[in-house]
Amino acid sequence: MTALQPRCVQAPGFETVPVPLAERAYDILVGRGLLDSAGPRIAALGAGAAAIVSDEVVAALYAERLAGGLRANGMRTATIEVPAGEASKSYEALARVCDGILAARIERSDLVVALGGGVVGDLAGFAAAIVRRGVRLVQVPTTLLAQVDSSVGGKTGINSRHGKNLVGAFHQPSLVIADTALLDTLPERERRAGYAEVVKYGLIDDRSFFEWCETNWRAILAGGPERDHAVAQSCRAKAAVVLRDEREDGDRALLNLGHTFAHALERATAYDSRRLVHGEAVAAGLALAFRFSVKLGLCPGQHAGRVAAHLDATGLPTRLQQVPGGCGTADELLDAMRQDKKVKDGALTFILARGIGQSFIARAVAPDAVRAFLTEELAA
Amino acid sequence: MTALQPRCVQAPGFETVPVPLAERAYDILVGRGLLDSAGPRIAALGAGAAAIVSDEVVAALYAERLAGGLRANGMRTATIEVPAGEASKSYEALARVCDGILAARIERSDLVVALGGGVVGDLAGFAAAIVRRGVRLVQVPTTLLAQVDSSVGGKTGINSRHGKNLVGAFHQPSLVIADTALLDTLPERERRAGYAEVVKYGLIDDRSFFEWCETNWRAILAGGPERDHAVAQSCRAKAAVVLRDEREDGDRALLNLGHTFAHALERATAYDSRRLVHGEAVAAGLALAFRFSVKLGLCPGQHAGRVAAHLDATGLPTRLQQVPGGCGTADELLDAMRQDKKVKDGALTFILARGIGQSFIARAVAPDAVRAFLTEELAA
Repeated sequence: MTALQPRCVQAPGFETVPVPLAERAYDILVGRGLLDSAGPRIAALGAGAAAIVSDEVVAALYAERLAGGLRANGMRTATIEVPAGEASKSYEALARVCDGILAARIERSDLVVALGGGVVGDLAGFAAAIVRRGVRLVQVPTTLLAQVDSSVGGKTGINSRHGKNLVGAFHQPSLVIADTALLDTLPERERRAGYAEVVKYGLIDDRSFFEWCETNWRAILAGGPERDHAVAQSCRAKAAVVLRDEREDGDRALLNLGHTFAHALERATAYDSRRLVHGEAVAAGLALAFRFSVKLGLCPGQHAGRVAAHLDATGLPTRLQQVPGGCGTADELLDAMRQDKKVKDGALTFILARGIGQSFIARAVAPDAVRAFLTEELAA
Repeated sequence: MTALQPRCVQAPGFETVPVPLAERAYDILVGRGLLDSAGPRIAALGAGAAAIVSDEVVAALYAERLAGGLRANGMRTATIEVPAGEASKSYEALARVCDGILAARIERSDLVVALGGGVVGDLAGFAAAIVRRGVRLVQVPTTLLAQVDSSVGGKTGINSRHGKNLVGAFHQPSLVIADTALLDTLPERERRAGYAEVVKYGLIDDRSFFEWCETNWRAILAGGPERDHAVAQSCRAKAAVVLRDEREDGDRALLNLGHTFAHALERATAYDSRRLVHGEAVAAGLALAFRFSVKLGLCPGQHAGRVAAHLDATGLPTRLQQVPGGCGTADELLDAMRQDKKVKDGALTFILARGIGQSFIARAVAPDAVRAFLTEELAA
């Protein structure tokens, strides 16, 4: 393992990443052991009650620690559990969570606390957005992916049979508490998958962060100050983009680097996490976005090779052939991409790259070029 | 029938009620025959496609006229039908409408058009708010209730088993087209029910409008310029309140005059429109709110008597005993009220009145006072 670089030296304790969105400003707290002080921090928001939404796996590990901390600070709590896994981002689970929040008599001034990974955060966040037309939300992300991506920025939602995240709302949290120690209990596969989103921030516009990741990825996965730095740096990168474009009318689309491919792969594998989890799809999507950029003559081949080599080294998939059970034909993947929210007037929008740290929004990409590329990749 | 009062003389054609909400400003057009020019007016919003959401009854009457007008103006259309009635404000119907909009490949820059009464407007509006995290919306209300109330102001939502409209979103339309001629095909009962919301605006803060209604209610129900005036005046009144308080943090609650009682009655009758439709519940709620104000010593008895007498004259219910099949016990009604979105820290908020046109928000009404009043009313 490489020695710690100067860039990630931090004060002991935790780091605060502010998200100064006018009336919806909030802080992201990043550090080891923050769950133990979550009670007073959440109670300080001034709510009388909280509905904790979690999945059955995370709830068994952490729900009572969190609820106890809230009760010790004078709050009434209820816990609502959903099955673990992407299948809970469904209309049915949404109805169950909304009814659970209402049954717990959560009022507009109370809180919904999302305790879990991306699925729980997206689902509970969406429920908070629509119950009583909006209840305040606290995100307590428990996976690397949720800590560096889904808990930040206010996007919430569920999946439709037409595609991922096609139904949802923008609903900013009032507070995000990212306890990096919780990642210690995360299965290795989930930690690695979340790491794909960390790498993404380097690839978008921060080549030196990508290079730091190349050196430090083992330490990030293992824990320690490198992990805390990677989480805080990812949150800062995401917050900066969200600040420029909260509702994804422009620049925010950069965060979708790799995601048009990833969403199509997830759809092709029926959102079955035994076959592919979101971060794995993103890893393949990042490698594909760079190779597609090379094919279009936009990016030097060695950059795409370096991206794939790094993801390969961490054990993440980088090729369509690595998708267990296959991912359908080029036309099926293309059709799935057309359902992406970023489609406008039938033209496909991709995030492409001129190199590592030099991504950009390419509107009106010709479907034929995508089809030809996918056909080649499937045959490779 | 009384002669037309000077106050409701208007230019021929239609009236435009502006709702100047900063970035979300829109117009409400009110007049006879507007459906025939809806095509060019909606196409002028610049969308390439529209999903028309309607119920099976309204769709049979008007969907093709509307769709034809849109297609003649270069738009692609799809029509999504739901069963008529309050039961369509459900999680299941919401899922069906969202998937229907996605199946029609409606993009963010396209439109959802709600063609129908309050149920369709609330359901389609909510679907528009959450599909792709927000698609533009046009309201084409076809009932008196929808024209004077639910199509204006951006509240959308569905019912939960815990109460009415407990799940939803604020989503302002881009345009509202209220063709008052469509009310000619409305069943008498629906027209009368919608009239309760018209009367409400007078009771809130416009005594002279209430008195004009007392004189002109038959003409409003029958059609003609009095109807157009009543609709436009109601929209103006509602728009003025919404402008002051878009998200119901304050004054907007005045629009709930009669509604805390009404929602409890609708819940007690299991949202069964054969027993009670929303406007009927509102009529009873208005009479109850005035009598409750009298009981609390806030309002002269003759004002409550005059309100009830007018609603009685139009054939609307004004007493709990008139609810077909009964409405449960005082405690059951109180429990339903506690689930109202306006509850804060367990205290009940009511809109009460010091007289006709003098309503106000009463926070922290003691549950015991409500229980005693309901018990009296049930025994009356």
